[in-house]
Amino acid sequence: MALEAASQSVSVKVAPAYPVVIGAGVLSRAAEFISERRVAIISNDTVFDLYGQALVASLEAANKQVVVLRVADSEKSKSLPVFASLLSECALAGLDRGSAVVALGGGVIGDLAGFVAASYMRGIAFYQLPTTLLAMVDASVGGKTGVNLPEGKNLVGAFKQPRAVLMDVLSLRSLPETLFKQGAVELFKHGLLADASILDDMTATPLSTQSDSARLTDLITRSVQVKADIVAQDETEQGVRAFLNLGHNTAHALEAVSNNQLSHGEAVTYGLYFSSRLSAHRNYQDYSALVKRFFDWVKPSPLPTRDFSQLESFLKRDKKNMDGVARFVLLKALGEPVLVDDVSSAELERAWQDVLALA
Amino acid sequence: MALEAASQSVSVKVAPAYPVVIGAGVLSRAAEFISERRVAIISNDTVFDLYGQALVASLEAANKQVVVLRVADSEKSKSLPVFASLLSECALAGLDRGSAVVALGGGVIGDLAGFVAASYMRGIAFYQLPTTLLAMVDASVGGKTGVNLPEGKNLVGAFKQPRAVLMDVLSLRSLPETLFKQGAVELFKHGLLADASILDDMTATPLSTQSDSARLTDLITRSVQVKADIVAQDETEQGVRAFLNLGHNTAHALEAVSNNQLSHGEAVTYGLYFSSRLSAHRNYQDYSALVKRFFDWVKPSPLPTRDFSQLESFLKRDKKNMDGVARFVLLKALGEPVLVDDVSSAELERAWQDVLALA
Repeated sequence: MALEAASQSVSVKVAPAYPVVIGAGVLSRAAEFISERRVAIISNDTVFDLYGQALVASLEAANKQVVVLRVADSEKSKSLPVFASLLSECALAGLDRGSAVVALGGGVIGDLAGFVAASYMRGIAFYQLPTTLLAMVDASVGGKTGVNLPEGKNLVGAFKQPRAVLMDVLSLRSLPETLFKQGAVELFKHGLLADASILDDMTATPLSTQSDSARLTDLITRSVQVKADIVAQDETEQGVRAFLNLGHNTAHALEAVSNNQLSHGEAVTYGLYFSSRLSAHRNYQDYSALVKRFFDWVKPSPLPTRDFSQLESFLKRDKKNMDGVARFVLLKALGEPVLVDDVSSAELERAWQDVLALA
Repeated sequence: MALEAASQSVSVKVAPAYPVVIGAGVLSRAAEFISERRVAIISNDTVFDLYGQALVASLEAANKQVVVLRVADSEKSKSLPVFASLLSECALAGLDRGSAVVALGGGVIGDLAGFVAASYMRGIAFYQLPTTLLAMVDASVGGKTGVNLPEGKNLVGAFKQPRAVLMDVLSLRSLPETLFKQGAVELFKHGLLADASILDDMTATPLSTQSDSARLTDLITRSVQVKADIVAQDETEQGVRAFLNLGHNTAHALEAVSNNQLSHGEAVTYGLYFSSRLSAHRNYQDYSALVKRFFDWVKPSPLPTRDFSQLESFLKRDKKNMDGVARFVLLKALGEPVLVDDVSSAELERAWQDVLALA
């Protein structure tokens, strides 16, 4: 069958291992992967209007009882009050330990629904059906779930591995180009960390929501493979998983400064350039021209601050820190990440000046 | 040293294994077991006034930074709003991934603090310092944590194993006798499940808060050993751990009917008798006279309802159910628990009549 031939699969080798299925039309095959009889779909209004009814119909055709829990299409939904109301709705819907939670949407939905699945009755089955490029290449694989606190993003959550992740590249067709680019940033990051063929592909021909399904499927599969390899080595981020934070501590600081007006993808784009300059100044490989080309394609919104001391104070609060020491992922060379905790204030300021020179 | 000679230890063999230390004066040795430099103590006003300052002093003497987070001494503290405010306080106190949460108090504190430790930054170190008999023999060992929803008790939470559990039997001296008896119920339950010597000891001489420390230490150690053995076989309640629910589905139903006015221990006392009668009617061992003697010592408050249909409707909602089928733990004989899911409505009603005949 054409649909099946077009899909690829990556196994995330944690215990138990689970499949990530990527391709055109996989949403319509969801019932093949979801074994539980009672299912709560958590989605947002925008995504549910596009893909929800077809998903519900296919699950109901497989004799499942489906309840739909919608939240607002907003980062604000990733909060403890919304978490609390979803849990109550699960209880009212009669979900039990043999039921499942299905996340249909982007990263906000996946993180929120995953924490609900992790916490409801201390954990029930969970499936990720990411509909944005960002959620596909980043949040939906690896089991990190959670919500924000007023005091900071992602400060609360759980490691909750899904039973399967289903990525329908057709859902990217309706994605606004700006959101698509946010996902492309993490795709590019995976290329920097471990797969130069991703960098070659992305810089050779511009990628877009209307790119060929086979090309999107192939790139996403390679990106998921990079993340799956790292997650399998370090499920709960005690070691190498920290490499995935390339550019992210800077990004979190910029997002916090901007009160989350700067998107995560834009912030990471700045962060990737910032860390490439830190690497260059340490006489590691200088790959910052490559990041600069990518930066010019993303065209992130202006920096929320040009004040170094403000950036630095937020960097010191990053939750990846241990005992107050800021940690950075740098690349000794493309494909060779290293974790350092001895970056001086002077080094940070010098790299920050390079970022300021961009715009 | 006399203190150390008086303490006993049980290893809970999950991965990683952790020690449960039982004895007189172990609270004053807490710093020996807690390796993290920054520590949040979660406690309630009553317990903290009794034991808090000494604990803080001993931790500070070991050069730890200690923040104290107090909640009201009430089951109402075991809620998502209190959970949310504690998480914000952890963030404001600057706790990071290398910090620890210490629960000082009874089961409400342990369950609440454990879920905070499980969720803050997706999990930081956790220590249980239970100060009630109930928390010692039940909630503090095994890693179950969580809070209540308006829709039901313990519907939200996580499996979060502590790094150590420290039980100071001296803290039982100040415990009201009614609370002490609630713990004795779980001690007795562990005797029914796996250690008849506990039953012999408890029925030979009445136990009280003023019983000899060595006797309390010994009984608690035996009870913890029963639970630790079961937890080690089944950390996340996929199988034999369900045996620990002996009497508990009935208890949860009675607590719900009473709107939690009936204490957990009183409810379990009814539940143990209810299940002993179910066992007797199935021609398993009839050990209900033994439970009746224990019941007469506990003297639980009156039943919140005598209406069988009300009980039954709550039993059907129990979260241990799978796909709507109510499951019961019964004993084929003392020390031989079995899980059954085919208890008919008629059997339930017959055993309920036996419970009604008690009072």
